[in-house]
Amino acid sequence: MSALILVYDKIKDEMKMLLKNVFHNGKERNITIAEGKIAKIDLADNDNDKNAEVIDCRGKAILPSFANTHTHASMMFLRGIGEDKELFAWLNEDVWPREKKLNPELVYAMSRFAVLEMIKTGTTFFSDMYFYVDETVRAVQEMGVRAAISYVGMDFSDKDKTRSETEAMERFLAVKPPSERIVKVGGCHSVYTASEAMFAAAKELCEKYGAYIHIHASETEKEVADCLKEFGCRPVELLYKRGMLGKKTVLAHCVHLSYDEIKIMADTGTVVAHCPASNMKLNSGRMPWQKYLDAGLRLTIGTDGVSSNNSLSMMTEMKIAALSAKSISNDFAAGRTTDIFKAATANGFAAFGYNAGKIEEGAAADFILVDMRNPLLMPNHNMVSNMIYSADSSCITDVFCDGKRLMADGHVKDEEEIISGFAKAVTILGA
Amino acid sequence: MSALILVYDKIKDEMKMLLKNVFHNGKERNITIAEGKIAKIDLADNDNDKNAEVIDCRGKAILPSFANTHTHASMMFLRGIGEDKELFAWLNEDVWPREKKLNPELVYAMSRFAVLEMIKTGTTFFSDMYFYVDETVRAVQEMGVRAAISYVGMDFSDKDKTRSETEAMERFLAVKPPSERIVKVGGCHSVYTASEAMFAAAKELCEKYGAYIHIHASETEKEVADCLKEFGCRPVELLYKRGMLGKKTVLAHCVHLSYDEIKIMADTGTVVAHCPASNMKLNSGRMPWQKYLDAGLRLTIGTDGVSSNNSLSMMTEMKIAALSAKSISNDFAAGRTTDIFKAATANGFAAFGYNAGKIEEGAAADFILVDMRNPLLMPNHNMVSNMIYSADSSCITDVFCDGKRLMADGHVKDEEEIISGFAKAVTILGA
Repeated sequence: MSALILVYDKIKDEMKMLLKNVFHNGKERNITIAEGKIAKIDLADNDNDKNAEVIDCRGKAILPSFANTHTHASMMFLRGIGEDKELFAWLNEDVWPREKKLNPELVYAMSRFAVLEMIKTGTTFFSDMYFYVDETVRAVQEMGVRAAISYVGMDFSDKDKTRSETEAMERFLAVKPPSERIVKVGGCHSVYTASEAMFAAAKELCEKYGAYIHIHASETEKEVADCLKEFGCRPVELLYKRGMLGKKTVLAHCVHLSYDEIKIMADTGTVVAHCPASNMKLNSGRMPWQKYLDAGLRLTIGTDGVSSNNSLSMMTEMKIAALSAKSISNDFAAGRTTDIFKAATANGFAAFGYNAGKIEEGAAADFILVDMRNPLLMPNHNMVSNMIYSADSSCITDVFCDGKRLMADGHVKDEEEIISGFAKAVTILGA
Repeated sequence: MSALILVYDKIKDEMKMLLKNVFHNGKERNITIAEGKIAKIDLADNDNDKNAEVIDCRGKAILPSFANTHTHASMMFLRGIGEDKELFAWLNEDVWPREKKLNPELVYAMSRFAVLEMIKTGTTFFSDMYFYVDETVRAVQEMGVRAAISYVGMDFSDKDKTRSETEAMERFLAVKPPSERIVKVGGCHSVYTASEAMFAAAKELCEKYGAYIHIHASETEKEVADCLKEFGCRPVELLYKRGMLGKKTVLAHCVHLSYDEIKIMADTGTVVAHCPASNMKLNSGRMPWQKYLDAGLRLTIGTDGVSSNNSLSMMTEMKIAALSAKSISNDFAAGRTTDIFKAATANGFAAFGYNAGKIEEGAAADFILVDMRNPLLMPNHNMVSNMIYSADSSCITDVFCDGKRLMADGHVKDEEEIISGFAKAVTILGA
């Protein structure tokens, strides 16, 4: 056997993992991970793949990891600042003075810290919108998760800004991401912060580079009223007229949609990123989950940034989504556990083109292992319900993304250094 | 020195603990615990109490533990059962057939498991209402937490039942609890399950034994409408007429109070046990937190039983309480972090007569230690906000109740045995 073949086999073997005796669909199984995918789901007594690295999963269950479809990861430094303050006082006194001090290194430190929190709470994909996008790309690439990172136009109808924003968006989209784990996204911040020209430029660039589109839409009643006044139509109608909707577009919030807008969303296959905690905290209104679902909308779930949540945990967010869906409906079956869980996993990944967030042969190997003896997951009458309503980060022992083990027995690589880097960055940005 | 004095000193020393370098109010402190109380809060460099057992608390903060003022602890076996089902189908198919199989030993196993979950999520006091109350007393006494355990009358206007319930309530209240950690409580289940005679009997017994009173009240609009129809007044008005209200009465839910009822609650000093997750899950309505608080009501927080939550974590419950308070108000300052936290701690303890839930000299030594390097508690701009909005059980390292260390570095005594006992009980009750 030639040396070359030996090396090749070694590489191939290293890429294979066997999850032994892992609980899935009511039984213990052996699951093989190869080349970033769930390669084989077998019965536990079948002895497959002797060359694979074996991970003993007795007492653990495998579940899909979460996809957080709307956040601003690097706002971590704002968690807990200006709590209970009036919006403008908070922005003016707390947020903007600190954001002015941001620089690439600080955003990099924040992004890493946000990804650490996401891994620890079982999330392996997030759709992000913030400043210094290249630094978030860098952090995500290094830490092994997936992300859809948006550069969104925000020109406030200032023509110089339209041009500079368009150039910056193109610079971002034109460079291929460092791996398939990263998706570059364009778009505009919202109909109230971006002009018609900004939207036209964003649309052209997204078409040119085949990019996904991310926009805030219909978050508050004020946004809808202002839009009606200025444009004679509602935000989602305006976005439709501007050609921004479709299967590759994700609209964050969508709290206040008219019947016609719901129909537009369904017909175009546009994705909703539902952010229930943020909507409640900012008193933006209550999104009618079941009504949208029944109309065929593609529902996904996001945490929004920590400044209006203040957590990146998709487990808490699922609970709030389920409770919110039930509390605005007279239907016990509103906000069904299966629907909520799918929105927080497979639907979120699919919104950005990934076949992930499900434990199936051929799907990407993005998943978590949970400790079935953790009291929060007992009794195990309904694992999905437990994940939504009672689980927390203490239940998750291991996190995998793209076939790599990002958290092993509760420990994430470079965890202490990431925390220290964050603490230092927070000091620079001010108490 | 006589042998007797030596023994006495030894006992006294054993009861003393020194929390060294524990973070409190912006600084590291040394805190002495003696005879179940927070005896002294000192600067970290003062060298107090050389005889005390020293616990190194560097990197940890001390916070009050939580008081859960309305739950049904032993319903643990029902977590996740019949999710998203219509109420009657769920009761008929899932709940009642299992509850019929309950016996003292099963309730004991459930109570222990519930207390385990509470300790792990930082709760050291709960107010409970369920069957086989003596078994819950036993579990609480053994495990070292505090509880107010109610025997509530429920006679459905059946005179035989009124008599047997009255006798059972008296048997329960007449026996002194095994320690000051347990408060025995009387009352009635609700105005729709207990007759006027049942209420009269409960009132008499509670007066005779100086007992606190616990009642479900004004949970749903249907309850209010039925009460108006049958009695010509609303539930809280009826309870007032029946002499059930006062400083020693806790009403669970209180979602739908009229202006007059709010005034009655304030004037009598009656306590509200707010259960926001349960109210949302069962679509019972939304309690107007800020309106009640501004009217001077004594607000506390409860999780309700896991069958309508499905968690006993007061951290998640605080988040839902805060979001719910904000989402039904146009005021950014509604559901203030300080108010929510106080309701979940000091107010809850005070509702049942305990001077606890606060880090003050003289208060009972009920508290938690949290790991300040846990990402969910960073940055530390506002520790209370972090506990409400982003913390989970992974943040809590130690739990103390009545000066005893019930959880040490994440481990609770007999944890594995409690979990096994629960698993066995669940098997008996049916999948």
